[in-house]
Amino acid sequence: MENKLIKHPFILEILDKYKVIWSLGHLSALGNWDLSVYMPEEGATARGEALGKLATLSQKLFLDKEFTDLIKKADGEKDLNDYEKAILRMLKRSLKYYEKLPAEFIEEFSKVASEGHIAWKNAKEKNDFSIFEPYLEKIVELTKKKAEYLGYEKHPYDALLDEYEEGLTVEEVEKYFISIKKPLVDLINYIKSSKKFKKEHALEKQEYDIEKMKKLTDKILKFIHYNMSHIRVDVSSHPFSISLGKGDARITTRYEGKDFAKSYSSTIHEYGHALYEIQSHDDLHYTPISGGSSLVIHESQSRFWENILGKSKEFISLLYKDIIEVDEKFKDFSVDDIYDYFNLVKPSLIRVDADEVTYHLHVMIRFEIEKALIEGKIKVKDLPKVWNDKYEEYLGVRPTNNKEGILQDVHWSQGYIGYFPTYSLGTALSVMWKHHLEKDLGKIEDILKTKEGIRKIQDWLKENIHQYGSTYVFRDLVKKTTHEDFSSKYLLDYLENKYKGIY
Amino acid sequence: MENKLIKHPFILEILDKYKVIWSLGHLSALGNWDLSVYMPEEGATARGEALGKLATLSQKLFLDKEFTDLIKKADGEKDLNDYEKAILRMLKRSLKYYEKLPAEFIEEFSKVASEGHIAWKNAKEKNDFSIFEPYLEKIVELTKKKAEYLGYEKHPYDALLDEYEEGLTVEEVEKYFISIKKPLVDLINYIKSSKKFKKEHALEKQEYDIEKMKKLTDKILKFIHYNMSHIRVDVSSHPFSISLGKGDARITTRYEGKDFAKSYSSTIHEYGHALYEIQSHDDLHYTPISGGSSLVIHESQSRFWENILGKSKEFISLLYKDIIEVDEKFKDFSVDDIYDYFNLVKPSLIRVDADEVTYHLHVMIRFEIEKALIEGKIKVKDLPKVWNDKYEEYLGVRPTNNKEGILQDVHWSQGYIGYFPTYSLGTALSVMWKHHLEKDLGKIEDILKTKEGIRKIQDWLKENIHQYGSTYVFRDLVKKTTHEDFSSKYLLDYLENKYKGIY
Repeated sequence: MENKLIKHPFILEILDKYKVIWSLGHLSALGNWDLSVYMPEEGATARGEALGKLATLSQKLFLDKEFTDLIKKADGEKDLNDYEKAILRMLKRSLKYYEKLPAEFIEEFSKVASEGHIAWKNAKEKNDFSIFEPYLEKIVELTKKKAEYLGYEKHPYDALLDEYEEGLTVEEVEKYFISIKKPLVDLINYIKSSKKFKKEHALEKQEYDIEKMKKLTDKILKFIHYNMSHIRVDVSSHPFSISLGKGDARITTRYEGKDFAKSYSSTIHEYGHALYEIQSHDDLHYTPISGGSSLVIHESQSRFWENILGKSKEFISLLYKDIIEVDEKFKDFSVDDIYDYFNLVKPSLIRVDADEVTYHLHVMIRFEIEKALIEGKIKVKDLPKVWNDKYEEYLGVRPTNNKEGILQDVHWSQGYIGYFPTYSLGTALSVMWKHHLEKDLGKIEDILKTKEGIRKIQDWLKENIHQYGSTYVFRDLVKKTTHEDFSSKYLLDYLENKYKGIY
Repeated sequence: MENKLIKHPFILEILDKYKVIWSLGHLSALGNWDLSVYMPEEGATARGEALGKLATLSQKLFLDKEFTDLIKKADGEKDLNDYEKAILRMLKRSLKYYEKLPAEFIEEFSKVASEGHIAWKNAKEKNDFSIFEPYLEKIVELTKKKAEYLGYEKHPYDALLDEYEEGLTVEEVEKYFISIKKPLVDLINYIKSSKKFKKEHALEKQEYDIEKMKKLTDKILKFIHYNMSHIRVDVSSHPFSISLGKGDARITTRYEGKDFAKSYSSTIHEYGHALYEIQSHDDLHYTPISGGSSLVIHESQSRFWENILGKSKEFISLLYKDIIEVDEKFKDFSVDDIYDYFNLVKPSLIRVDADEVTYHLHVMIRFEIEKALIEGKIKVKDLPKVWNDKYEEYLGVRPTNNKEGILQDVHWSQGYIGYFPTYSLGTALSVMWKHHLEKDLGKIEDILKTKEGIRKIQDWLKENIHQYGSTYVFRDLVKKTTHEDFSSKYLLDYLENKYKGIY
């Protein structure tokens, strides 16, 4: 079948060769998925070997002169459309990464990250930062080296941010955080002083049967998604979403046996990621721009589904009948009760369980620490104290152990430094989409009340965001769709309105 | 860690390079596993693309001059031990295959097989051979061509047999089938004339709850296997076993909701395959001789577990308590009843459901048809009639439709011609192992009565068969372990004794 979006012979020639690299990526992704969900425990070493070899092979194929020559040849072309330009942009990004980072460095980094990950798990289990400390030191040291290899204009952390969000800089992130910090702290203080403020909701402690909750997950997915033959859901301790290409999107969720909002939110959050991949234009499959590569845009989708839809009263109403079927005791709670439970604001220690308001402060803490680490202004060995002090300062809570503090997140152990800010930016973007979707279609609460309401929302997201895959970088896509620049103003208005309503 | 079995520097150098090819194989195997058990339906095209590209890439890496030169260099070495020789033997086998079959031919064959498979499924569903006929014609034509490419001494079918069982010839297979044909027909006639002969057992119609049967599968595996962290079981319509390397063996089973022997037997059969891979010597991992490549030896392991252990009264007794927990109605049946049910002999139409005695006649029919097709003595269009006539002649039953006849097996649709004889030969070999294991350890019925009895059997299999992986070809391994040549005599004695006892 003819490709309607991509027609330039140079680009088609590149894509033809790229298909092998895509294939290696496809099966590596499957290998990673399997590793988290079904692989027998003792298969880890062999899987690690295979994934490592494939990564090296993929790099080798990418750097093959015949392939890089094609990229360079196409790069001179004037006559490319947006899709074709984007393909070239993405390939050049990979090329830069491969060319600037020596193969031995990539190997060393990957080895340290893999060992660091095991050390982190161990440290977290034993609540002992000293187990992880030497690995984190090495990771920080190598990450600084990586920034130098990759290059930057103003700040070494810029090079790291760019890995997760093309072109993102410290300057931008700081400007953004400054814009939200005070309003959020004020809002939190308002909430804490409200009579309705409470530290606990009965549903947090309410236990449930995991098999029954799995059935709810299936019902939610069947209810929100329009085609179950290209998506599946499994279980993993850290929920994630992964796309294996055309017709194959996968998400995972978690079941802790109580506090069902965690499971519910994970499912809907990951679905938001998956839908972006699913609704990418068909003609972009097997190219480097199918699906999302901007973590900010990706997170804007997951947070849109998780918070703006999933935690709304209308959405809860639509699923209420199914929710209360999970447990006899759930029947004691009304739609309003569940809405209060899903939207409970309270400063707490764990980022992944944080509410919509305090969440950004968790991210801010990580950003400040990462930046200071890269600048050499703080030392790894002082991190537990630095962390706890910041939690006390920003959130008014102080971890009593490192498991709930510095050891809670997996990211650093895997060498992901520069990743966290995209969580907050993406969340802010999700509210921008809400604003513009409502401008086009009317209030979400009203859309959800109509027949095919969810489908209308999915169509809007497809039309305005998903179909393009990674054709446009974050800033450009925002401009193209909303005709304005990215801003935190919608996030702040939304939080203010929503939570001053509740509290 | 130092490899204790493989030390020759030439071989170690080869294995170092081979690891990439192994890695591609590992992830392709995972891709195939996933395709059968979890892949969302619409992911088929992308998966097909990826697996196809990886196969071509693997061939390319194999044929890389640097790699083939190493093989050729090592080939001149006198000073190799059995493991090292075997590695070279296996690599040369692959090399021969890649060198003799033109890449375009492999691609065409793979395309026709993939289309043929879909056509076959469709034909089977609609019970209409004419849908599959043109594809099968093409497959037979290409298979003949393949035999010519690969070369043979006496019969083109020899080249096909060799693909599944190294060195197997028409002459050997015919000699073997002649040796068992008359005794089996006589035994079947004896059984059919016995007063105890019956066409049905109450348990065949007994329905069960699939979730509960799944729990039985788990219990069976936990009962027979000693380490659940390197094996897993899933569900697929055609049960299979696949090994992904060290610490990762997977089996599947099926659940039809009645006639639970099918599910029980599949689980134990596939476990036999998996155990061979699991118990292969650790130092053979990442080499081409880890696990079994001889289909005859492999089938001897699965049939050993399925028939000789799984269908024995002692084994049933050990699992009886768990079996009757599946369904209230199962409690009406005693160990003896279940034994009778598992060992019911009756000429029937479907190979995969056939009993131990009639099974070989099903295989024989396929062998005769395949050979005649390759010789051009019969035509594809006449196959339904040829098939039905042979069933009537050998088994006294005549299919009333092609679904139960010529369309029942998947093999031909995937281009597997020359595969079937290994099923019967492997089954005969399983009885040889039984004889020699009992010579060493005493009667299996007595071993099973002892503590750790199953573990003793596993250890014997490891010591005598599994640890070698594919180091020895079928004939040589039989000789090494049993000090005699492969023969059908033990099979015949076993069937005669067992079934004259029952009937």
